Amino acid sequence: MPSTQLTFGSALEHRAWLETQAALPLGFRVGTSRFEFRPVEVDKPATMTVTLLALETPTPSFAAMFTKNAFPGAPVIVGKLRLAEPRLGAIVVNNKISNVCAPGGVEASERICREVARVLDYSPREVLPCSTGVIGWQLPVQAIVANAAAAASALQASSILPAAEGICTTDLYPKIRSVRVGAGRIVGIAKGAGMIEPNLATMLVFIITDLDVERDALRGMLRTAVDASFNAMSIDSDTSTSDTVVALSSGRVACPDPSVFQRALSQLCADLSEDVVRNGEGVHHVLRVKVTGAPDVRSARAIAKSVVNSPLFQCAVAGNDPNVGRLVCAIGKHVGALDLALDMTRTRLSMGGIELLSDGVFRLDPDKEQRLVQHLKAAELYASVPPADGLTFRPPVSYPPHERSVEIGIDLRSGEAEAIVLGADRTHEYISENADYRS
Amino acid sequence: MPSTQLTFGSALEHRAWLETQAALPLGFRVGTSRFEFRPVEVDKPATMTVTLLALETPTPSFAAMFTKNAFPGAPVIVGKLRLAEPRLGAIVVNNKISNVCAPGGVEASERICREVARVLDYSPREVLPCSTGVIGWQLPVQAIVANAAAAASALQASSILPAAEGICTTDLYPKIRSVRVGAGRIVGIAKGAGMIEPNLATMLVFIITDLDVERDALRGMLRTAVDASFNAMSIDSDTSTSDTVVALSSGRVACPDPSVFQRALSQLCADLSEDVVRNGEGVHHVLRVKVTGAPDVRSARAIAKSVVNSPLFQCAVAGNDPNVGRLVCAIGKHVGALDLALDMTRTRLSMGGIELLSDGVFRLDPDKEQRLVQHLKAAELYASVPPADGLTFRPPVSYPPHERSVEIGIDLRSGEAEAIVLGADRTHEYISENADYRS
Repeated sequence: MPSTQLTFGSALEHRAWLETQAALPLGFRVGTSRFEFRPVEVDKPATMTVTLLALETPTPSFAAMFTKNAFPGAPVIVGKLRLAEPRLGAIVVNNKISNVCAPGGVEASERICREVARVLDYSPREVLPCSTGVIGWQLPVQAIVANAAAAASALQASSILPAAEGICTTDLYPKIRSVRVGAGRIVGIAKGAGMIEPNLATMLVFIITDLDVERDALRGMLRTAVDASFNAMSIDSDTSTSDTVVALSSGRVACPDPSVFQRALSQLCADLSEDVVRNGEGVHHVLRVKVTGAPDVRSARAIAKSVVNSPLFQCAVAGNDPNVGRLVCAIGKHVGALDLALDMTRTRLSMGGIELLSDGVFRLDPDKEQRLVQHLKAAELYASVPPADGLTFRPPVSYPPHERSVEIGIDLRSGEAEAIVLGADRTHEYISENADYRS
Repeated sequence: MPSTQLTFGSALEHRAWLETQAALPLGFRVGTSRFEFRPVEVDKPATMTVTLLALETPTPSFAAMFTKNAFPGAPVIVGKLRLAEPRLGAIVVNNKISNVCAPGGVEASERICREVARVLDYSPREVLPCSTGVIGWQLPVQAIVANAAAAASALQASSILPAAEGICTTDLYPKIRSVRVGAGRIVGIAKGAGMIEPNLATMLVFIITDLDVERDALRGMLRTAVDASFNAMSIDSDTSTSDTVVALSSGRVACPDPSVFQRALSQLCADLSEDVVRNGEGVHHVLRVKVTGAPDVRSARAIAKSVVNSPLFQCAVAGNDPNVGRLVCAIGKHVGALDLALDMTRTRLSMGGIELLSDGVFRLDPDKEQRLVQHLKAAELYASVPPADGLTFRPPVSYPPHERSVEIGIDLRSGEAEAIVLGADRTHEYISENADYRS
């Protein structure tokens, strides 16, 4: 469950809550600049925001994790090199174009870093570039350079909300989570709604803190937190080419206890990853699959991912259809394909706490069917609204109406390991969003 | 490419062509019986067809392959036992309910086999049961037993078309392929439109021949044919609990040459697998992904499957959007997750023969974009029609309007192995079909 219980009846209420999370920790500043341009590959108008997240002084205490996709974006290639640098002073992010396999992509990222370094008076190697959006197009470098300077003039030290908004692409709303540790705070923002099954990190997540945590410790704690959060979720099984998680400490406030910091960081990552799934493209239901009694964590997580990535189960959930057969199919598909030595007749399945299967046999009846439908309906974020043009479905809400999920229990009764994975259903809104994302 | 070039302008034309394929080989008979019932789990009306495919004399020459899903259906459990029997005389199939993890499932299948054996005067162990449809419900055993007798009285030796129709569930039309070898023939039928990424076999495929091929040879040749056809396709990445491919020879006609038989069998399986994909749930475009220059066939096939199973790429294709970035993402996701030792900058990508990427860099411009859109539009089977209720999309055609595909080329330039995998796009019709399949 998320650390903060939220229920929102409107986008305004949600925004007011975001502002309670948005105060910047000591030592950080944020600025953005937005502009129009025409991508050369398609020659159509598009809009981009350049976001600058800057430290008042470059810090040695930073951590970053990147996608394992074998076609990494140019900013990922550059970002990995930055890990060896003594200090990091700023992150520059553009949305709309992800700068992956584009001609001159690495040079473009480096050029943008040079400009940010110039206006902030830092070294170019103290600037980390990030890009997210369409894969295949080239960055409008000159326009980004001009707007990086504009973003620098807009820098302010009060709120991270402009950055949380500036990095969005298909996100319906910005995502911010904040947690207090002793006299300091950890604040994180995330973007990402599609192409989400991170492998080492999610699309773009920036976590900043004024708590003084040394570089190696910060990197280890980030790995731990990411593994159980961003690496344990999937919206559509597509691992992005640009996934990046960065953590920065300004070191302004003494950290009371590393284990308290780790717990807070892990909770913040778990909350942000749930935010990302709940705001996933076209998501009507968040799935929370808990696998217990597994021989190891890896198998537990893989079985849970097989469930959340099953198109048929996802569609059934979208229709509030407790199609338990597809749940069994998705589990059996994974276990069978990998020849895992599991006695499946030991498995117990539940949905919303209601028993579905035990001793290899379904336990179903019309009354239970109705209770399962009720569980699904209670977890629905919204229902599809017939679109004006008959074809293009758009989500009717731009905030998370509640925090309920479809709760799936899979007890393999074959060990002590467990895992929780978050996923989402598959809807008309997802199809509409992605049938012509680039236009 | 399919062995027979087909272009249909109507369901009537398609049906006339099916009839040219439908003549039963010597030694086989087919009968069906259809009835209404109420599944006990939901207590709503439903319709089922019992199909009987019988040999005039039980044959020692039969082969069968089954799903690797770890929750196999009861008929799969029984079917595997039949492989050791000296002879097989008949196959009994029901649609609507797949008999997976249902209370008393195996006993139900055996009871149905006993009845079929009684009316045909065979041994129960000479009857192979198959079930397809909803997972989780129990078979209406008494009704099936009564209708098995009715199907037996309807047995005829002229056409397989009633069987091709009788085994359908969400299929839009029956699928039959026939090939002549010397003085004999091989005829195959298939059903399956969703829950299709077979692992050893597809949902239900029955291949019958009058050519005399000895049991072990038939089993080996079926494995070869299935591996390059049903195991090289995916509609939605969900491996069914009921996948079954059966081949039966009545041995009535001398087989001229085993290698000719193998080629004919492989072509028939390839054609049927393409039929299954083209008739996949909600499919607007068939994807044909050819991977060349791979270090081994397994990697080649896995990379191709990563492409056809990418929800984002599938949605883009549905929208006739040549979103090449998602193609790169899907390839990179797989290669990165498995840490394959491939130099991705060697990769060359094409769509419809048009170069997309080489030397690690995209080769795109507005003119090429338009040509890619044209390739996608030419391969479209139909476009979505806004539904009357605003939400429930139904395919406007019940026949394959043409045989064109979206042709994806992936040359890894890192070896000699290659593979072709068939897949499909992801559309509103798929979502509508599966958001409430059971109702």
